[in-house]
Amino acid sequence: MTQHTTLSDTTAEELAEITSRAALAAEELAGTSLERRATLLEAAAAGIEAEKDELIVLAHEETNLPEAQLTGEVARTVNQLRLFAGVAREGSYLEAILDSADPSLTPPRPDVRRMLEPLGPVAVYSASNFPFAFSVAGGDTASALAAGCPVVVKAHRGHARLSVRVAEIVSAALQDAGAVAGTFALTQGRVAGEGLVVDPAIKAAGFTGSIEGGRALFNRACTEREDPIPFYGELGSINPVVVTRAAAEERAGALAEGLLASFTMGVGQFCTKPGVVLLPRGSSVPEELAALLSERNGGAMLTPGIHESFETGVQGLDATDGVTLVGRGRATGEGVAPSAFRVPMESFLKNAERLTTECFGPTTLLVEYGQESELDQVLEVLPGSLTVSVHGTESDHATWASRLPRWKKLAGRVVWNGWPTGVAVNNAMQHGGPWPATTGSLHTSVGATAIRRFLRPVAYQNMPEELLPEALRSANPLGIVRRVDGELTR
Amino acid sequence: MTQHTTLSDTTAEELAEITSRAALAAEELAGTSLERRATLLEAAAAGIEAEKDELIVLAHEETNLPEAQLTGEVARTVNQLRLFAGVAREGSYLEAILDSADPSLTPPRPDVRRMLEPLGPVAVYSASNFPFAFSVAGGDTASALAAGCPVVVKAHRGHARLSVRVAEIVSAALQDAGAVAGTFALTQGRVAGEGLVVDPAIKAAGFTGSIEGGRALFNRACTEREDPIPFYGELGSINPVVVTRAAAEERAGALAEGLLASFTMGVGQFCTKPGVVLLPRGSSVPEELAALLSERNGGAMLTPGIHESFETGVQGLDATDGVTLVGRGRATGEGVAPSAFRVPMESFLKNAERLTTECFGPTTLLVEYGQESELDQVLEVLPGSLTVSVHGTESDHATWASRLPRWKKLAGRVVWNGWPTGVAVNNAMQHGGPWPATTGSLHTSVGATAIRRFLRPVAYQNMPEELLPEALRSANPLGIVRRVDGELTR
Repeated sequence: MTQHTTLSDTTAEELAEITSRAALAAEELAGTSLERRATLLEAAAAGIEAEKDELIVLAHEETNLPEAQLTGEVARTVNQLRLFAGVAREGSYLEAILDSADPSLTPPRPDVRRMLEPLGPVAVYSASNFPFAFSVAGGDTASALAAGCPVVVKAHRGHARLSVRVAEIVSAALQDAGAVAGTFALTQGRVAGEGLVVDPAIKAAGFTGSIEGGRALFNRACTEREDPIPFYGELGSINPVVVTRAAAEERAGALAEGLLASFTMGVGQFCTKPGVVLLPRGSSVPEELAALLSERNGGAMLTPGIHESFETGVQGLDATDGVTLVGRGRATGEGVAPSAFRVPMESFLKNAERLTTECFGPTTLLVEYGQESELDQVLEVLPGSLTVSVHGTESDHATWASRLPRWKKLAGRVVWNGWPTGVAVNNAMQHGGPWPATTGSLHTSVGATAIRRFLRPVAYQNMPEELLPEALRSANPLGIVRRVDGELTR
Repeated sequence: MTQHTTLSDTTAEELAEITSRAALAAEELAGTSLERRATLLEAAAAGIEAEKDELIVLAHEETNLPEAQLTGEVARTVNQLRLFAGVAREGSYLEAILDSADPSLTPPRPDVRRMLEPLGPVAVYSASNFPFAFSVAGGDTASALAAGCPVVVKAHRGHARLSVRVAEIVSAALQDAGAVAGTFALTQGRVAGEGLVVDPAIKAAGFTGSIEGGRALFNRACTEREDPIPFYGELGSINPVVVTRAAAEERAGALAEGLLASFTMGVGQFCTKPGVVLLPRGSSVPEELAALLSERNGGAMLTPGIHESFETGVQGLDATDGVTLVGRGRATGEGVAPSAFRVPMESFLKNAERLTTECFGPTTLLVEYGQESELDQVLEVLPGSLTVSVHGTESDHATWASRLPRWKKLAGRVVWNGWPTGVAVNNAMQHGGPWPATTGSLHTSVGATAIRRFLRPVAYQNMPEELLPEALRSANPLGIVRRVDGELTR
């Protein structure tokens, strides 16, 4: 498999061959049992786990990310593959619904049974900042394979060697577990990146990256092919945080510590980094934060280009009317200095477009408000985000019970007394939100329900038992949860 | 409410006022209980039912559709509103998922609870062919209101007076039931049609109509606004039907009768009309059909424009190489003559692009194959459809068990020994399919799961009980089905 052992860019001919193999594999994979699909995912998980030491070294070399963080990310990635194995095996993701016939009605009511079925080959565009969890064998790949869709990954240049190595491991694991050729493939370069979304064999795409790049691909997926396909892009997010006056008075030190840890985690390169923090004027949080920052060394960023963009972004912040520096850490070696800025609410509202643009890297902006009643003014200027977080005390519950309905419209996840970084991979997680957080807020790219992105419903009307998929047969041979004549039953 | 009592086109200013009222109503409606939302839908249903005699007369005048058909359609529309009242009240559409915290893990696992919440105001573009069921108070409106989204309808010119009258009834019923102003509004004309999809207050759109019009609006919804919105278009479908040799030999007469009834139902103006029928060469179905057709009077079409397009379409069919007339009915008064054509498989494959274009109206094309093994050749040329139907006998089960996985990729609903027209409104129905049947195949516009189109997931992390929506509180005060730590429970 040449594309896995070299770093050369995929050509148009290679891409066409890869996607047509994926189309053939789609038929095979759609016909596999849930148990078999779970086994494939578990094989991929075991393959990665067995080689994790080598992979972490490689990832560190290519991304500068600390080994401790990469160790956690590999564990998360392996767990994620296993989570989706469990989702496939359990089978309620199929949303099986059976409605019995009633020939006595006018017109007679037919027997109709519906379930979700795989869309077909999925393109996965890797992110730079999570070389495991949002890359070759990350959440998009795991959820697409669990849904029964072959995957064609577009590797990220930022960790090209790691991508090739992970793809080799996954391909070998899938092959050993009996998957047909074409179930999984890696591509690289511009031809693949631009070609995948318009390739007729590709039926959906997952993407994690920049607003500009993601929107361009989204537009192409919608308009530059005869059959539009769903394009799930996770783009940019400033993840606003509100600190109530009561919270700031109660625990300024802990808030400063928590904020610093959150906005510098992964050298500030997390999509859930808190970029804007609404703080009551006069609190001691900025001073506490400044003290902590002065002791802080900055890490190296993912790539020189990202480093440069970050410096430009910080200079832009610094040069904005009303914005002043709270504090700055140390930049040692190739590292960048983490920093925090502050701005009065009035200036923030005036320069909102500039100040609500995501600055990818370890910096955050404290927006100082007077009265909490002023807070809702920022709802007009804050863009959609993955998360919105509130730090409060029990005395704030009543106020926020009435305020939350407006605030939650900003985001797909609402966090109370916590920081947005650290995304649990579970059944309930929602990682998606209003534009520009994602290209559409109906779906998630993290957590069990991410599988829904790659499935379409098919209904069977008056179908003989032996022609029905097993999941819909009357005797429920798979033992899955189904809605039968309106009642959920197993 | 001026826009309801006149037929004048909505101006840009009126549109802006209507959508901003809808945005305000969205907050109110999102906060209503499930019970309350069910009551609103039931009030609308009762309002329409009470005035149905008047409405049917009006509909008949404007659409030419027979009163018997319109009577059935009103009943279906009323039942549909009640179905969605039931969906809202039952509450499992919220897909509530609760995952408990586990502080012992590294990192500690937070408490995360997720449910679906309304997207916001929805634009509904009415269809011409179902003046009740896919119009002002049809499936899109019912499912959006059930989801908690205000609705702004774009009326269809083909039944403008009926649209106004239904909107008056629905508005009054909602108002009497306590809905806030802005929950429901009617608009008309080009400014509204083009403006709704790009209006910042509108968060999703449902559309039933032509491929050309639907695709243009879909493209605008994706690319001509800062935040793309989901646009659910149901466009064109040829609904292929396969008749096996065994079935044709067993019951040619019944098949001819069934086919005639299906392709002439609603004067052939149903989106599920069978447009292409694959028949074994040498069967007597064409002759039986010709005999039945010669006795058949055609009805009047919805509008003179549709009538003209139909005649052009039929002439195009007739003039295509290899296509010959099977038979034609009588055109009396303003009616059109129903007709059937036949073509050998080879000619069909050669002229596939022309012959697989939907011809809206009472005509169908019999494609005659030699061996059943040739059938799969047409999979390469058949476009996506709402339905695919097979007429077979028990002797066909084994062959079709292996053939169906390829055939079902064509459509969202697979019918055995039945005709595609007549769409049951139930929990399991899927009315949607691969392009150009719909702009995306992930969703349905008919049946209980149509509500999913207008909802987005929101996750709550470590949220105090009193700040959680009722649906997610630990004690489950709504008594709805939820997934708690992986297990479905009530």
